[in-house]
Amino acid sequence: MKNRTLLMIPGPIEFEPAVLAALGAPTTSHLAPNFIEAFGQALERLRELFLAPDGQPFVIAGTGTLAMDSAGANLVEPGDRALVINTGYFGDRFGALLERYGAQVHHLRAPVGGRPALDEVEAALRGGAYKLLTVTHVDTSTGVRTDVKALAALARAYGALCVVDGVCSVAGEELHMSEWGVDVALTASQKAVGVPPGLALLVAGPRALQAYQARKTPVANFYADWGNWLSVMQAYEARKPAYFGTPAVNLIFALNASLEIILKEGLEARLARHRALGRACRAGLAALGLGQVPLSDELAANTMSAPRFPPGVNGPAFLAEAAKAGVTLAGGLHPAIRAEYFRIGHMGSAGLGDILATLGAVEAALEACGHAFTPGAGVAAARTAWRGA
Amino acid sequence: MKNRTLLMIPGPIEFEPAVLAALGAPTTSHLAPNFIEAFGQALERLRELFLAPDGQPFVIAGTGTLAMDSAGANLVEPGDRALVINTGYFGDRFGALLERYGAQVHHLRAPVGGRPALDEVEAALRGGAYKLLTVTHVDTSTGVRTDVKALAALARAYGALCVVDGVCSVAGEELHMSEWGVDVALTASQKAVGVPPGLALLVAGPRALQAYQARKTPVANFYADWGNWLSVMQAYEARKPAYFGTPAVNLIFALNASLEIILKEGLEARLARHRALGRACRAGLAALGLGQVPLSDELAANTMSAPRFPPGVNGPAFLAEAAKAGVTLAGGLHPAIRAEYFRIGHMGSAGLGDILATLGAVEAALEACGHAFTPGAGVAAARTAWRGA
Amino acid sequence: MKNRTLLMIPGPIEFEPAVLAALGAPTTSHLAPNFIEAFGQALERLRELFLAPDGQPFVIAGTGTLAMDSAGANLVEPGDRALVINTGYFGDRFGALLERYGAQVHHLRAPVGGRPALDEVEAALRGGAYKLLTVTHVDTSTGVRTDVKALAALARAYGALCVVDGVCSVAGEELHMSEWGVDVALTASQKAVGVPPGLALLVAGPRALQAYQARKTPVANFYADWGNWLSVMQAYEARKPAYFGTPAVNLIFALNASLEIILKEGLEARLARHRALGRACRAGLAALGLGQVPLSDELAANTMSAPRFPPGVNGPAFLAEAAKAGVTLAGGLHPAIRAEYFRIGHMGSAGLGDILATLGAVEAALEACGHAFTPGAGVAAARTAWRGA
Amino acid sequence: MKNRTLLMIPGPIEFEPAVLAALGAPTTSHLAPNFIEAFGQALERLRELFLAPDGQPFVIAGTGTLAMDSAGANLVEPGDRALVINTGYFGDRFGALLERYGAQVHHLRAPVGGRPALDEVEAALRGGAYKLLTVTHVDTSTGVRTDVKALAALARAYGALCVVDGVCSVAGEELHMSEWGVDVALTASQKAVGVPPGLALLVAGPRALQAYQARKTPVANFYADWGNWLSVMQAYEARKPAYFGTPAVNLIFALNASLEIILKEGLEARLARHRALGRACRAGLAALGLGQVPLSDELAANTMSAPRFPPGVNGPAFLAEAAKAGVTLAGGLHPAIRAEYFRIGHMGSAGLGDILATLGAVEAALEACGHAFTPGAGVAAARTAWRGA
Repeated sequence: MKNRTLLMIPGPIEFEPAVLAALGAPTTSHLAPNFIEAFGQALERLRELFLAPDGQPFVIAGTGTLAMDSAGANLVEPGDRALVINTGYFGDRFGALLERYGAQVHHLRAPVGGRPALDEVEAALRGGAYKLLTVTHVDTSTGVRTDVKALAALARAYGALCVVDGVCSVAGEELHMSEWGVDVALTASQKAVGVPPGLALLVAGPRALQAYQARKTPVANFYADWGNWLSVMQAYEARKPAYFGTPAVNLIFALNASLEIILKEGLEARLARHRALGRACRAGLAALGLGQVPLSDELAANTMSAPRFPPGVNGPAFLAEAAKAGVTLAGGLHPAIRAEYFRIGHMGSAGLGDILATLGAVEAALEACGHAFTPGAGVAAARTAWRGA
Repeated sequence: MKNRTLLMIPGPIEFEPAVLAALGAPTTSHLAPNFIEAFGQALERLRELFLAPDGQPFVIAGTGTLAMDSAGANLVEPGDRALVINTGYFGDRFGALLERYGAQVHHLRAPVGGRPALDEVEAALRGGAYKLLTVTHVDTSTGVRTDVKALAALARAYGALCVVDGVCSVAGEELHMSEWGVDVALTASQKAVGVPPGLALLVAGPRALQAYQARKTPVANFYADWGNWLSVMQAYEARKPAYFGTPAVNLIFALNASLEIILKEGLEARLARHRALGRACRAGLAALGLGQVPLSDELAANTMSAPRFPPGVNGPAFLAEAAKAGVTLAGGLHPAIRAEYFRIGHMGSAGLGDILATLGAVEAALEACGHAFTPGAGVAAARTAWRGA
Repeated sequence: MKNRTLLMIPGPIEFEPAVLAALGAPTTSHLAPNFIEAFGQALERLRELFLAPDGQPFVIAGTGTLAMDSAGANLVEPGDRALVINTGYFGDRFGALLERYGAQVHHLRAPVGGRPALDEVEAALRGGAYKLLTVTHVDTSTGVRTDVKALAALARAYGALCVVDGVCSVAGEELHMSEWGVDVALTASQKAVGVPPGLALLVAGPRALQAYQARKTPVANFYADWGNWLSVMQAYEARKPAYFGTPAVNLIFALNASLEIILKEGLEARLARHRALGRACRAGLAALGLGQVPLSDELAANTMSAPRFPPGVNGPAFLAEAAKAGVTLAGGLHPAIRAEYFRIGHMGSAGLGDILATLGAVEAALEACGHAFTPGAGVAAARTAWRGA
Repeated sequence: MKNRTLLMIPGPIEFEPAVLAALGAPTTSHLAPNFIEAFGQALERLRELFLAPDGQPFVIAGTGTLAMDSAGANLVEPGDRALVINTGYFGDRFGALLERYGAQVHHLRAPVGGRPALDEVEAALRGGAYKLLTVTHVDTSTGVRTDVKALAALARAYGALCVVDGVCSVAGEELHMSEWGVDVALTASQKAVGVPPGLALLVAGPRALQAYQARKTPVANFYADWGNWLSVMQAYEARKPAYFGTPAVNLIFALNASLEIILKEGLEARLARHRALGRACRAGLAALGLGQVPLSDELAANTMSAPRFPPGVNGPAFLAEAAKAGVTLAGGLHPAIRAEYFRIGHMGSAGLGDILATLGAVEAALEACGHAFTPGAGVAAARTAWRGA
């Protein structure tokens, strides 16, 4: 069993005790009144979390990739054109799955650590007759955050549906789904939503549902077909039983527990806390002389950081030393730079203490790996930067 | 939170404390050594459980329907012919999903509560040039068990791949995957495998993998594509990290805990216990004057029972009374007879005590609903029938 | 870790999942607002449970014997006379500890399985100038229940304080502490109160507190001295922090969770259920031809049963067979008859299902031990007797 | 339920997940083989932890005060002389309870924050004919650590039994019970031993047991009388059932889990880690300009710190701000200086990360309370001081 060491990777994260208790409680029937109530609440709360009063939430057993797949499979018909705002590994993945469903995919890329400029996006949209624009809000492989609000506005202006992969952002980065005109937003349970892995979470807005209903061809993916799940979600939200596949009862109780905690904190307070987490973490890393993958601070996510190793530091040795110091960090994921950087998740319930503990372990690991820096500089800078919170 | 009342439906079931404890434990990284070890063990143990030394296990976040979908999506190419041995609701579902992937599906049906005769199956196979035969080992909507061994032999004889939907059977009914020539067997975590819902479990045999590799068209379903998961499963079994989607860490720890319990009991002992569960439950029900959906005792599953309501007994009232007596039972699922019967799950760790408690609640509910019978006859008959165990 | 087998001994018992979840939750400070609230609630609820509006509850880390010791140590001064209504092992223990504190103890005994007649008690009281009368409500070694109401009235009539050892009765047998004039009632957490072992629970009425305050000598036992705890209990109930020893935080959260469940069920309903448990268990045992230790049904407790082994049945073998059948039972405790009987606890959240499961295991064990009886007779009789509930 | 904020008080502390899981697991019989094994192991492991190969461990439901009371009640007879090395609140308590059992108590005190000099102790012993010397290893009210090794040697030299109150030291401070000639050492579960509150832990050495056996008067305290428990402890260690009072099954499983973790880390490594915890915490506090209650660093405990508030800082406001910053700290306890200082526990599984998180919260709270210091200085100093570990 995991001991008290900190899990500071970009998902799964440290979960609240109340969430784990809900997960490990004896399982009820998926048709039991208390489960119907919890599932119904969770659906309502997802709508609040996504700020999508006119959206339709879906909660389905699966990974974040299933959530992406569900968006692609239900919205794309063979021959449809899709524009992928590609800021890393998960842009590639979105393109790959859209192609699987017959889309003609155009990737708009930027150098690693950057993001396509809005005028490039507009230029592409103008010429493209795209049905779909996908955007990774925070690409977990680079820590780059995109400007979803502006991209959604552009998509709308050019008649494309805007699909936001919020796997590494929802509940940690600002997202006003309805107000911004986002048509689908999705995430996975094990990230900032704060629930152990196993649930794909997606909210579809009215235009997305219309596009689904207007399909001329069946959805190629049976399991992900919204048609199978829509009436089930509507039934549970109306506090009525329904069945397509057995819901992941324990995970849904856990989801409801976490959403309660999130909404009780308040979205504004939660986002402010995540901004402080990002600010403090980056300040600490900078004070230790570490660069980062995002090409500028404005591009850097609040939910995670992607620091570059200083010269001479060996990745696996560094991660092993950090673990010895009590903090589990993640290695690189982006194929082009995999060995050059590491990743820190700071989302969910994380606070100043977690950032300090993490930077303490980063200092210890850098020291063990022979990197020269002023001892204590990282934790001091993080502590100081947090004050602005 | 669920109290000490018994959950005796055909999944989710009552889970072992050690399984729930593993589920609710703080989450580790999906790349942590202890998780890699647990996942690797779980894969090895699945191979033991399915008696499939040459099989390839897949553990993927999702429902049992995802497991079915995965079999269909990976094995079917447009135009392939599939024979569905249809004994209820889940035969219909298998047909529907196979059609989604382009199969020409022929359903071989029997009256409700029956199963197609082997000579009918052979006749169909003889004339059909089927690529695929699917069979529901135990259809959860009827409690009918099919003769998988004979059907697999026929499939083999006529060159069809045999896919077994073992959602309501694996770990509770006899299944010798390799020896019987079954090409794919699949289940869901929340049934006799004894793990809360959220995992699709599938083992693919060598011929199934060959058929996958010989495909001329890509798998239509991105999430379920074995190509995405195969190297991940192989890596974890070799105790190496790998990534496609974040594994459902807590559920997989729970799966490994349950498989350890199952294999420690021993498959022979476990199947004998399930035979006793089925025998005792049916004896108790018969002593109360209740018929059952399966047309004969030989067709009845050991993992669940599907008793018919006696005349005059109202289903919802009956279920509510049973719940008041401390046992949650399930209503009907098969559309043709939905209001005429109810369902009892007796699998996993269930024992004589659970059967007696269940029949005690059935007696109490029947009494409250005005059905005449000798009080105590049900529990006495169950207790007596168990003795033969 | 315990598996799903049933623990049917006279404590510890099967606990509710919500109680175990509270116990295993991360520990808060003993001065944290949520703990202060929980402890305060628990004290209020104990007063409700004991039906002692004018009583002072004490919750102290320790066993049931500590609760007894606390009563003895605080009420007895050297030379005080005490009358022990002795119905078994725990009468002996009460006498022993009273003597330790200097009491002159007179035991009023009855044959094993019996209880002293009220006129004997009155005769003793009349002649005795007793300061204290102690009574074991249900002696766990015999399953004999005493008539607390009548005994308390006699004690009152003759000016003796009435101390009730309710370890095996509180929350399962009728006890109107204030109305009946009981001066101290006490129990342990792991019995019918439904909380894992570790808490001594005691309520002192006004006369008991006056007797304490009127002491001429200090309490010999430092840890148990009410003077150390009284202000702490009062503070927590007033929702204020206080300190003498660190409260058993997790157990007290668990206690509060269990008391909530108990009071939500309602004391009347709970006692009726326990009467049904006792009636059904005894009916089942009788139908199998087993006698019981209590000399008549009127003397038998509702919280436990003490059946005698039939001739030829070996105790350890019987208990091992019952365990194999999934139910843990207890052996004998009373020194005079230890090998001749066994003990079944049926309290807390136990229901008909638990009784049926238990009798099923008793039948299986008797069968394995060669005792002749009509198979199923025990479970049938229990099920039938329950109907009167 | 507690959320992810840190509990950094001198007990209860943050417990390991495996310990909490053991605590919350379904309860077994106190006579079940797996419990007997766990209790037996726990006793053996206590002997290892106390480095007392010839000691007799006792594990009894109760608080740390019960452990102290048990030592006093079993060793003192009326008229015995006892010397209390008094370094704070718990020295006063030890004296009070010894007097309860008839001892003539002499307190050897020092100014608050100090400890009596060894020559003073020797002088007192020389003239005193003391049967007993008690010493608080770390007084939780002051954070002062005494020199147990030297005191035990003096006690031995002058024929007094040496009783060590190790409530705030055992498993966190060096203690070689047998080698140093300590006769009784005791602690409570919720401190450095790492188990939620509810268990009194005591090891009695051979001379202490001889003194017990040589008593001329009965032990005044029935519950704490070693005579009631000795055969029970011996039986469980011999893996045999025995009964005096129902053991606190869940807490004992948790104790065994924690002792396994402690011994796996290794006592040497564990003590070195606690030295680093103390050093880092004190360095951080000093860098923020905070004094401490112990009069010198050499007197300061490794398991806790007792920093003085800087002028102008209000205690309750400070603690509330620290809690807002995610860390629960403790107020003062020593009556003479209660409002002048606060207390930080750093024991059990605490690591660098916990110290950094704690100092971050201390900084945040000092800032909010208007104390001037260099932001980040505390965490930087702690991080730097840790490096020497």
